[in-house]
This record gives sequence, C-alpha cells and structure tokens, in this order.
Amino acid sequence: MKKIQVGLCGLGTVGTGVVKVLEDHQEQIKHKVGCEIEISKILVSNLEKTRDVVIKQDWLTIDPADLVDNPEIDVIIEVMGGIEDTNQLLERAIRNKKHIVTANKDLMAVHGQKLLRLAKENKCDILYDASVAGGIPILRSLSDGLASDHIQKIMGIVNGTTNYIMTKMTDEGLPFDEVLEEAQALGFAEADPTSDVDGLDAARKMTLLANIAFRMELNLEDVHMVGIRGITQEDINFAESLDYTIKLIGIASMQDGKAEVTVEPTLLPKDHPLALVKNEYNAVYVYGEAVGETMFYGPGAGSLPTATAVVSDLMEVVKNIRLGISGNTYIDPQFDHHLKSDSEKFSRQFIRLEVEDQAGAFQEITNVFSDEKVSFAKILQLPGDREKIAEIVMVTHKISREQLLKSLANLKGLDVVKRLISHYRVDGEE
Amino acid sequence: MKKIQVGLCGLGTVGTGVVKVLEDHQEQIKHKVGCEIEISKILVSNLEKTRDVVIKQDWLTIDPADLVDNPEIDVIIEVMGGIEDTNQLLERAIRNKKHIVTANKDLMAVHGQKLLRLAKENKCDILYDASVAGGIPILRSLSDGLASDHIQKIMGIVNGTTNYIMTKMTDEGLPFDEVLEEAQALGFAEADPTSDVDGLDAARKMTLLANIAFRMELNLEDVHMVGIRGITQEDINFAESLDYTIKLIGIASMQDGKAEVTVEPTLLPKDHPLALVKNEYNAVYVYGEAVGETMFYGPGAGSLPTATAVVSDLMEVVKNIRLGISGNTYIDPQFDHHLKSDSEKFSRQFIRLEVEDQAGAFQEITNVFSDEKVSFAKILQLPGDREKIAEIVMVTHKISREQLLKSLANLKGLDVVKRLISHYRVDGEE
Repeated sequence: MKKIQVGLCGLGTVGTGVVKVLEDHQEQIKHKVGCEIEISKILVSNLEKTRDVVIKQDWLTIDPADLVDNPEIDVIIEVMGGIEDTNQLLERAIRNKKHIVTANKDLMAVHGQKLLRLAKENKCDILYDASVAGGIPILRSLSDGLASDHIQKIMGIVNGTTNYIMTKMTDEGLPFDEVLEEAQALGFAEADPTSDVDGLDAARKMTLLANIAFRMELNLEDVHMVGIRGITQEDINFAESLDYTIKLIGIASMQDGKAEVTVEPTLLPKDHPLALVKNEYNAVYVYGEAVGETMFYGPGAGSLPTATAVVSDLMEVVKNIRLGISGNTYIDPQFDHHLKSDSEKFSRQFIRLEVEDQAGAFQEITNVFSDEKVSFAKILQLPGDREKIAEIVMVTHKISREQLLKSLANLKGLDVVKRLISHYRVDGEE
Repeated sequence: MKKIQVGLCGLGTVGTGVVKVLEDHQEQIKHKVGCEIEISKILVSNLEKTRDVVIKQDWLTIDPADLVDNPEIDVIIEVMGGIEDTNQLLERAIRNKKHIVTANKDLMAVHGQKLLRLAKENKCDILYDASVAGGIPILRSLSDGLASDHIQKIMGIVNGTTNYIMTKMTDEGLPFDEVLEEAQALGFAEADPTSDVDGLDAARKMTLLANIAFRMELNLEDVHMVGIRGITQEDINFAESLDYTIKLIGIASMQDGKAEVTVEPTLLPKDHPLALVKNEYNAVYVYGEAVGETMFYGPGAGSLPTATAVVSDLMEVVKNIRLGISGNTYIDPQFDHHLKSDSEKFSRQFIRLEVEDQAGAFQEITNVFSDEKVSFAKILQLPGDREKIAEIVMVTHKISREQLLKSLANLKGLDVVKRLISHYRVDGEE
C-alpha cells in the first residue's frame, strides 16, 4: 500500500510534538488508517538550530517549494503561524493537490472559506480541528454528528486566557488588571492581550464552529462581540448573590434559517456545567435535535494537546484519501446568509443602574421597562455608596435585543437615572 | 460504487429511530462514507404490527436466516436485546463475514471479548458505542485518541438511573426508597432496579471502557462494585458540610501494567465537573498522558440518541470496509491480566463512626489509624442523637485499600466504637 508523505511547515513546540507523536505511535496509526505515514520534509527558518527531537538532517529545508511544489508530498501540516504569507503558501500547496492540516485559527478565520472552497475544487481536504480548541475534537464531532442530526445551538468557553482571568477574578476577588498581569507572567496571556480580552479570538472560533454547524457562511463581522475589560468585582458579586457566575461565553444559534453569533460576558446559573469550567480549560455545549445536549471539555491549548489534535486530523485526511472522499469534509453553505434582526434575538438580561434615591424614582424606571413590555424575574434595590444614591439590579425575563436597546436608551433620558453601570446577557436556564 | 446492505434485528423504538435517521440523512451519510447504505431486511417478531415508520413490507421477516445467512447483507445492526440467543445469532452472522453494530451492553459485557476475537479472525468489525453511553461517542474517542496518546485513568458517571436517584436525594433531601419509586413511575428506573442500583450496569460499562483504554482483558469479576442502596441522607449532609457531593462513580486506572476498576459511591469536590452532572445524564472523564483531562457529557440513553449512535457506528463500519481495515478496530490485549493488589490501590477515604462519648475514646481511635500510618485531612466530632454517643466523621489523606481494611477491622475490635456507620472513596482532588 502506498505510503503517505507529509511535509511539515514549522518545527516549534507543536511541530516538535507532531514529530514525536507520529514516531511514538507509528504502529497504532498504521492500524487505524490502513497505511504508513511518513514525514519527508520539514520547513524551518534555521537549519542549524538544536532540536528537541531526532530529525534526519535531509528532512530540513528553508525553501517552501521543497514542500508545496514537491510531487512526492501528499499532505502539508502547517504549524508555523502567520496569516498572509502562510495563506499564499497553502493556496499554492492546494493548487498542487496537497491536503492541509493546520492549527492556525487566525488564518482560518480570515481566509478559511476561500481556502476551503479552493480545496474542494481541487478535491483536497483542509482539517483544522487543532485550531479551535486544542484538546477537544469539536469540529470533527460537529461534522460527524451533523451527518445524522441537526444542530440548533452551540454555547462554549473557547478562550482559555479570558476564562483563566474570570476564574481568578471570581474565586480570589482580584481586579482585572492584577489578574491579567499574573496571567501574562505565567504565559497564559500574551504581552498584547487585546485579541483575547476583547473577545476577538473567541469570535473567530465561534465563526468557525457556526459555519460548520449551521452550513451558512458567517464572518467575523456577523459576531456581536463584547470583551471582559469592563467587568468589575461588584458585577461579579451581584451576579453571585443572585446565584450566577460571569463567564465569557460564545453562543451561536439558528432558528428558521436565521443565525445569531455572539461572544460576550454572560451570567450562567452557578450549577450550569459551563459555570464550572475553570482556569484555562475550554468546553463546548452542543444542542442537537436528536441527541439533545452534549458537551466536550478539555484543554484549550498547549503544545502536546495541539500536536495530538494535529495528528488526529492527519489520520482523518489519510483515511479520506483512501476512501476517495477527499474534499467532502467541506460542505458548501446550504443556507443563504441570514442573520436574526434585533427583534428576533432573545435572551434574559442582567442590568445595573445607579439612581437617585427619591420618591417615585423606582416607579419612573419600571415605567420605562413596562412601556417596552419588559418584565422582571428578579429586582434588588440597595443603598448606594453615596448619600441619596441607590443602586438597582434587575434580571429580566426573555426580551429581544430591540427591547433591551430601547429600554436602555429611554432610561438614559430619565433624570433620576445617574448611570447605567453595566448590563450582561443571562443564559443557560429556561 | 457498491451499495452497502444492512440487516436490522429489532424494530422497537431504537430500531425505528435507526430507520428514520438513515432515511432523513441519506445524502449527508453518502457524502461522509463515500457510498450508499440501504436497509434490506428487518427481523421482527410480529409481521402485522403497525409501525411508526414507512417500511416496505418485503423488508420484514421473522426468520433470522434471512439476515444472518443472507449473502447480500454486509452489516447486521442488533437492537433487539437478549443475551444467549442473540449471541448465537451474531456468532453465525460473523462466521458469514457480516460486520456488527450493536447497542446491547449486557451481551457485550458477557460475550464481548469472544465475539470481538471471532470478528477479528473473520476480518469483521463489531462496533458497540451505542451500548455504553447512548449520546456520547466515548468508545470511538478512546480508540481514536489511543492511536496517539496513552490513557491513564477514566472516571465517569455511566449509569443514568443511579445518577437520577443521587441527584434527587441530594437536591431535594428525599430518601432512597421514595426516589426509586418516583424514578420507576417516570420510567427512569426498571421494575427490577437491581442491575442499576447495585452498580452492575455501571460495572459492565466500565469493563468495556477499561478493555479498550488499557488494552487488557478485564472482566466483570475484576470490578470492585458497591451500589447506592446504603447511602443515607446523613451521609449526603455530612459530605455536603465538607464540600463534597456523593455520586456513583466508575473509575478505571492503570499504573505499571496493573489495572484497577471500581464502581462505588464516591465523594467528589462540589466544584468538580462530574459533581454537576445531574439527573439521567452521563459523563466520562479521560486522563491522557499527552492531551491531559478531557470530558464527554451527554444523554446516557434515550431512543433517539441511541439510534444516532448506532448510525454513527454503522458509518464507521462502512468506512472501515472501504478502507480495508475491518477487524482492526479490535486490538488484541497487549498487556497480561494484572490487577493492582490492595496495597497498590490508593485513594482518600471518608469514614463515619458512632463512638462512646467518653474521655480517651478519641485517642484510642486515632491510635488505631496511626498504627496503620493513616493521617487525616479533616476530622469532625459531633454529639450523637443519643446520650453519651458521639459521631466522628473523618477524611483521610491518600491511603491504600490494605490500610483502610486493616484500620476498619481494628476499629471494630475497640469497645468505644459502637458502629462503623459508613465509609466511601473520595476522589477528584489532588
């Protein structure tokens, strides 16, 4: 049986891990895919560097053409990162009929749809499970599950850095800035944490998940995105006193052919399974019509989990080659791009206001909400930290985003409302 | 491309679900496996019965030979239940080179190893993911994951009935008997609940999981099995006051080529992800050397989740046929049957004693433990419900089962110890 030849782009910690996993598990892998898999070229930037794995010197090259134009090579594994140059390299590889395995979510979020279409035209696979949640085979589970179920909603913690920060803020009562610094020192957060803490990374991953789950081409600009910078210890404490935990949650849902994708701080009941996902762990809840609720939990990143996920994708690519179904993994969007309007997006909301503590103030505020037909599940009124100032904390029943925005705008017009302190989505309960 | 012909044994709720799923998702399935799949015969006990699905009348038969001896049929799906007769039927089918998909865990727990070996000799697959935890593709995840990782420990809630009972006892403070009756009325527990509440069902599933994860042939008699009948509301309350939740937990672990499999009521920290798995849901934690902790959560049973799992297994069987790797799914045990001895099984323990409330009693008791080098993480002494009787609740540091059994035996020899009320394993914390 023909050996499958692999070109590996990048030999950092993940690349090194891939080499090790392939070597250590040679026999089992052959058993599972029905043929041998062999690395034949590795693209590096420095030929002389000492490596953590035993590598044949003639595997190494600094010329991408030795991989992407090499007729011997069947599959390219891309674990070197980067967006534009890498995209060009992979496009060239695909035109040369090479299958792709990548752990590069930034690339996939920006150029994914184009690359996937190009691959399909060339009857090639692109698998990128390692890019979404390192240790969780969530894309494969979605795409396998989809073959015999309809997915209605996905809800997940898909960014380890923000989940680490929220865990520390909640469990140890520390302020955002301090926890961020600690996370940076520990290597859980990058020097420039913007893409994590502002929700961009999570939004990219939710886009990748929603595209597969709903068979609709959704882009980053379709995602309603709010980060975690504004969350205060008071928000966390109020949420806690109402039996909620605040997490940065990605939600993608589809009804009547219309999709909604959002990444925002969300209050979950304390005993919701996602509320217990701590530190840098990730978890994705999937609601399928037939199967009901399932959840996948695991490390969101890390070089070994990611290397293992890359090898799993590689095995899948090899099986598909042998089954003659390469390129089938990507399914053309079946549904036109339709998003829910604000009047079709429903959720409960947690709202905190600073108000004047005077007769009739409460009445004025509740009038604003009842004008928009917003009703409440819970209301707390508390003395504020200054004289004549009170604080009101409310949790609404399910309302549309339109109702929310109108109510908030009208509140701002009231003299008795000093400040809209914060408002968050509430989810995970009926 | 050759069509794959399927013979379906059984047309109850799961069988009906399989017919529906195959029909509703025909196109997607063809896309994923590279060929068409068609049901050609269905074994039923009554030809005249009205069915919930549209069935061609000539599909139905009451003669098993029309399926298992039928040269046209490639795969047998067994969803009719039963052990001995069903085993004979499947053996005959395998000798006739048919692949098997079954949702029958009782059969697999008793005859699984024999059937799997017979299938391997005949280059046939037997897939049985639907038998372990309906909606969770745990066997496939283990076997796929194993191709590139080593699994060290599996810990799970694998029986929905007992988890439902424990949830109600814990959340609503109801006694075991009352909850069991309610569960029976709701259909979550069988009229004869023995195999669920005594841990047998969970032990069967843990055996199936451990066999795959550790590549060692483990049997039901290798499992240390304790059910939930003895758990009282006091046990639950004491556990709660120490921040633990009691669940019926299956644990399989392997160190230095020696395995341990146990199903027993276990105290977990309240914020452990398994502690939050409620009602009839199942969840399985897997600890892999490379990937670290991952968890799969989903419905443990139900006709639609089970039918979906059966169809997923069927798709896998068809892919394997086309890959020419049928029979490879079953891996011969690589390790000899070695179990940990009692001196090699370590865990923390929760122990409740009724003692005489007199000077020196506490001292006598702690002496018994310190003689066995058992030390404690937590000790509570409380007044008992009768005069001159006190209750002691202890949580030990990690001790061996040998230390536990010796200490308990020595305690029974003390005059001041009136009664050993209960003792449970404690797990899920370091």
